[in-house]
Order: sequence, then structure tokens, then C-alpha cells
Amino acid sequence: MMDQSGIRSKLELDDERVFIAVEEIVALVASIFENIGCSALVAREVAEHLADSNLCGMESHGLMRTLQYAEQFETGYMRADAEAEIKTSERGATIVDGNGGIGIPAMRIATEEACRQAREQGVSSLAIVNVGHTGRLGAFTEAAAYDGFLSICFGGGGREKWRQVAPYGGRRAMLPTNPYSIAIPGGDRGPMMFDFATSKIAGGWIYAASSAGARLPDNVLMDRDGNVSRDPEDYFRGGAILPSGGHKGYALALAAELVAEAMLGPTRTEGGWLLLTVDTTRYREASAMQAIAEEILDELRNCPPAPGFERVEIPGEREREYREASRDDGIALPARTLQQIRELSDRLNAAKPA
Amino acid sequence: MMDQSGIRSKLELDDERVFIAVEEIVALVASIFENIGCSALVAREVAEHLADSNLCGMESHGLMRTLQYAEQFETGYMRADAEAEIKTSERGATIVDGNGGIGIPAMRIATEEACRQAREQGVSSLAIVNVGHTGRLGAFTEAAAYDGFLSICFGGGGREKWRQVAPYGGRRAMLPTNPYSIAIPGGDRGPMMFDFATSKIAGGWIYAASSAGARLPDNVLMDRDGNVSRDPEDYFRGGAILPSGGHKGYALALAAELVAEAMLGPTRTEGGWLLLTVDTTRYREASAMQAIAEEILDELRNCPPAPGFERVEIPGEREREYREASRDDGIALPARTLQQIRELSDRLNAAKPA
Repeated sequence: MMDQSGIRSKLELDDERVFIAVEEIVALVASIFENIGCSALVAREVAEHLADSNLCGMESHGLMRTLQYAEQFETGYMRADAEAEIKTSERGATIVDGNGGIGIPAMRIATEEACRQAREQGVSSLAIVNVGHTGRLGAFTEAAAYDGFLSICFGGGGREKWRQVAPYGGRRAMLPTNPYSIAIPGGDRGPMMFDFATSKIAGGWIYAASSAGARLPDNVLMDRDGNVSRDPEDYFRGGAILPSGGHKGYALALAAELVAEAMLGPTRTEGGWLLLTVDTTRYREASAMQAIAEEILDELRNCPPAPGFERVEIPGEREREYREASRDDGIALPARTLQQIRELSDRLNAAKPA
Repeated sequence: MMDQSGIRSKLELDDERVFIAVEEIVALVASIFENIGCSALVAREVAEHLADSNLCGMESHGLMRTLQYAEQFETGYMRADAEAEIKTSERGATIVDGNGGIGIPAMRIATEEACRQAREQGVSSLAIVNVGHTGRLGAFTEAAAYDGFLSICFGGGGREKWRQVAPYGGRRAMLPTNPYSIAIPGGDRGPMMFDFATSKIAGGWIYAASSAGARLPDNVLMDRDGNVSRDPEDYFRGGAILPSGGHKGYALALAAELVAEAMLGPTRTEGGWLLLTVDTTRYREASAMQAIAEEILDELRNCPPAPGFERVEIPGEREREYREASRDDGIALPARTLQQIRELSDRLNAAKPA
């Protein structure tokens, strides 16, 4: 759905939006994280990551997270002063340990190391553990794909805290929304990339719908008795999000949970992730691969649309088109979100030692 | 759905079923492939693979394929006398080349080599190319998981021949049903394994419904104008199967197509596959991993069922339970299928040089 500002959202936001220059909001948000105790580099990296999610239309992973992250730093759920580091375990695995900090720098460091190892040996497997929220996963897999890698990232864990999704055939929320992202070098317009929750909707939409007093799309939520419901409050009364594609989304989610908890766990902070990276140039020259990819993608772009659709999209292209179109205008934030960010900034500034 | 014999099927088969001992049908089918020109080892391996699919309730990948494979050998679509071999490409990739033969032995050889390499370096990436049908993918990923590996296999390709599925938002069949299989060591009852098409149904069900004069489940097929249809004939009049989970199944299918065609292609014979294998014991001791996995799986098995369901299943367990329960009784084949297999065998025997 698009609201009046053209921002893609699963909810109709009635809120007025305010445009703000990218550099201004990045500086504001970075100063918040720095005042909370993040290093200047981490604060800036997280702020830029969030702003980029807004720029490419992924508001759910954008600057609205500033408030959530700040709260998670202040309550000690995540450590503000943590720095991620690359370790080799006793058993010989490469593990990026977030040391309890936010997962965005950890995921970027892991992606760089994964590509380095894959360039060297053709393929790499890295774990990312002991991290808070990792931001928009697709940003990392897409970066690897720009450098010629097939990149697969999935994970989750921490189901004790995040029981959101019912298993297929069940009527209790038991699993997190455990997402998958895959990116691969594409045709002339850049990589094919996707990044999705294995549930019918991401958990954030329940909170957003509840806060906005909105109803959810049909057939994404069940109430505590297992009946389909559109009322977000049914979720908080013991309901559950449905798995995407029935048994298929459930199977994907369960594989991710076993990776995160049984293979990499126990989960510390929020989640555990596995990043698999393949050097595609071991199989075919980049230019030849791009030519064939472009043939396939061009065919799809020209597929006649189904009723109710304008066109067939290539996963990942909408985000880049959106970023291209929106960069100069700045970011259109809901006025209330911007107000809350400014208030948080003022509070932290006032609390600073003179 | 279950028919009267308890065989899981998306169609109600009116056909009478006949029980046949496993060893008898394996010998019969192996002799067919041998008479067509397969080596004794390949003939036996394919026959056993098909019989095992029946035993674990996956009839769509079972002995009914004998007739299709025989025809594909006889028409030259697949080469009967081909032997799969492991190669290292000029660019340093490990590639299992099926040399135009059936993909079942190629996939088994690839799985063994993938596990060997993953044991050595922690992770491996193998391509399987120039193969016909690869049988039931889950049989291979599950075998790797029994040995302690996380195994991910996906691919497809050959969309020129196999335009079956519409992209999300489109109304033309453009992509194959490109499946994914993932298996990982599980709890006390063996690995968690899934193996699914990225389309709402596998292509074979369209043919089966058409041949049986049956209607398809709702919301899996569109006609050539993009309207949902339950009539399998609409598929042959220019319709398309819908992607599973909308944009999510489409994205998975497209990633597989780009792997199979752009990275590994051009597709020869039928498909191209990527097999990624991770040694889970690099991350955690097998016994500790199993204990945590069992906790997670046991929770899920005990989840209260949703309306219309008897229980929550763990992907992969139903196949093993089914095999366990059915082994002694032999295989219940539709009488017509068994008749056709016997006629084929007789025809090939009669044609043999004295």
C-alpha cells in the first residue's frame, strides 16, 4: 500500500509527514547514539543504515527504529559501547561476536570477512552471534552481490522472548519471524535481492496496527482459538501470526531457529545468524553471468501484469529505484516520529555533563 | 489428502491399489532401466531411490516416474549410459557433471563429495550440472544431515522448456517450479528436512489432475487472463501456476533460476543445482546440538493444533514415520501404474537380442 506521500506501508498512516535532509537526520540520530554511549563510528554507521532504509522505502527498518534502539541501549538489552570482533572458534569456525551490541556493524564486518574468505576458498560460512537488531539484512547481502558473490543470510533464535508465529497446523505463537535474505549478481540494473520474514507479516506491523487502531490484512493473524482475525489486539490476547506459505514458511523458520539456537546458540542479546557466501566468478565470468541474468530479468519485467498489478518487479530493484528517486528530496518522516526523535535528542543533550 | 490406502496425494485417486514387495518392484524397475542401457549400478540406484520415495509417502517422486524416465531415456532427452563425474573447473569450482544422464546418481555423488569437502574446510559449494531429473532432493540433504551437516540444495533452470509458474504480479507462466531443500541435524528422531517447490503446487499435479479429470485446490492456478481457476485444462490453455507465498516464492524461484542459468548455465539436459554444505560440528558438539534441537522440536510437537489439524509436524518426520510403518507391507501402487510398468518391462524384454 502507498499512503499519500508514496511511502510503502502495510498501514494507512494518517500522520502528516515532514521532509528532512538526509545529512541533517543522520547527524541528529548519530548524536543520539553517541550520547547514549556508542562510539562515533558505530553511531554514524547505524544512523546511516537506518536513513538508507527510509530512502529505499523500507520504513519498517528505518529511522523509526531510533527510538527502539535507544530504549534497548538505555535498558541494557543491548550494550552501547560494544564493538564487534571476528574470532576463530576452538572448533575452527569463523564467528563474528557482537559482544552484546547492535548487530548492524557486526553484520557489515561479517559481510566483508565472508567475501574475503569466499574470494580465497570459493565459499565461506560465518556465524554472527551475540548481537541486537541487525537492521535491514538485504543491505548486506546486496553489498556482497555487488562484489560478485551469492550471499545467503538467515537466522533468528531467542524464541523464549519472541514467540510471534504459529507453526503450520498449530494455534500458539512459538517461533520468531526468522527472516531470510538472498542476493546474487543480476543484470544491467544491479543484483537480485530479497529479504523477507518467514511469517505472513513482520511482527512490527502488529504493533503499528495496534498503535494506529488499524485492522490487519486478511488471513495473516489467528486469535488464541486458531480462528483468522484482522484485529491486532487478538495477537496480544494469545494469538499468533501465520507462517508465510503455510508449511513452507514454517519449515524455513524452523531451519533458521535450529541454526540460531541448536547450532550457534544459546542466543545471547537477540539473535544468531548464518551467512553463506559463494564466489560466483568461480563458476562463470562476471560479464557472461550478467548478460544471461539480464535476459532472464528483462523477460520478467516484460511479463504482462496480472489483474490488480501494474508490472512484474525484480526483487531488489524497487528499493534502488526508490532511493534514486528520493535522495534529493530528503526523507519524509511521520511528523510524530521526527518529533519523538527530537525530544529524545533534547533529553540526552540536557542530561550530558557540562 | 489421503485416499483409502492412506497414500498422501493431492488428488483423490479412484484407482485400485496393489501391494507389491519392495524387492520385487525394485528388481523389476532396475531391469527396465538396465534394458534401456543404464549400467546395473545406476539402474539399481534409481529404482531404489524411487521405491524409497513411495515408502516415505512421496508418491509424486516415486515409482510412477519409471514410465517418464524410461521415455526420457528412449527419446534421448537423458542418456542412459552416462556416468556422473566430479570435475574441478578451470576457475576452481567443484562441479559434478551428469554427462546428460539421470540426476539421481549425480546428486548422491555430489552429496558425498560435498560432505567430504565440508568436513575438511568447514563449508563447501558444489554445482551439479547437465543432469536429468534429480529425484527427491530431500533424500540427499537428509543423508548429509544424518552425518552432521547443514545442507542446502536449490536450483532449476531450463525455463525455455519449463515455463510453469507466473512471477508475482504477472499472468504468464515464465519460470520452472524451482525447488529448495534444507536439512539440518535434529533432535532424537533424526534431521529436520524440507523439500518444496517454490510454486503453490508442483507441476506434476496439473498433469495428474488433468489425467484424472479432477479439479485443483483453490487459488493455486490462474487462467491465461490472470483469473484464479481450479480447472487444470486452463493451465494448458496458457495459464500458470501461482508462486507460493506470493512475492516470497517468486523471489526464491528467481534466485534459483539465476543460479542455474546465469551462474551455472546454460542448462543442459534438464537442470542445474547448487549444493551448499556446512559442518555443524565446527560450531557445536553434535550431542549438545541434538539436545537443544530436541527441546525446540518437542515444544512444537506439543503445540495445540489449529482447527482442522491433528497435530503440528516436524518437517521430515512424516516421511520417516511413513517409511517405518509401510516397509513390511511393501508398496501400494495404483493398479494401472503397476500394469504400465509390467507392460514396459515386457516390451523391453521382447526387444532384447536373443
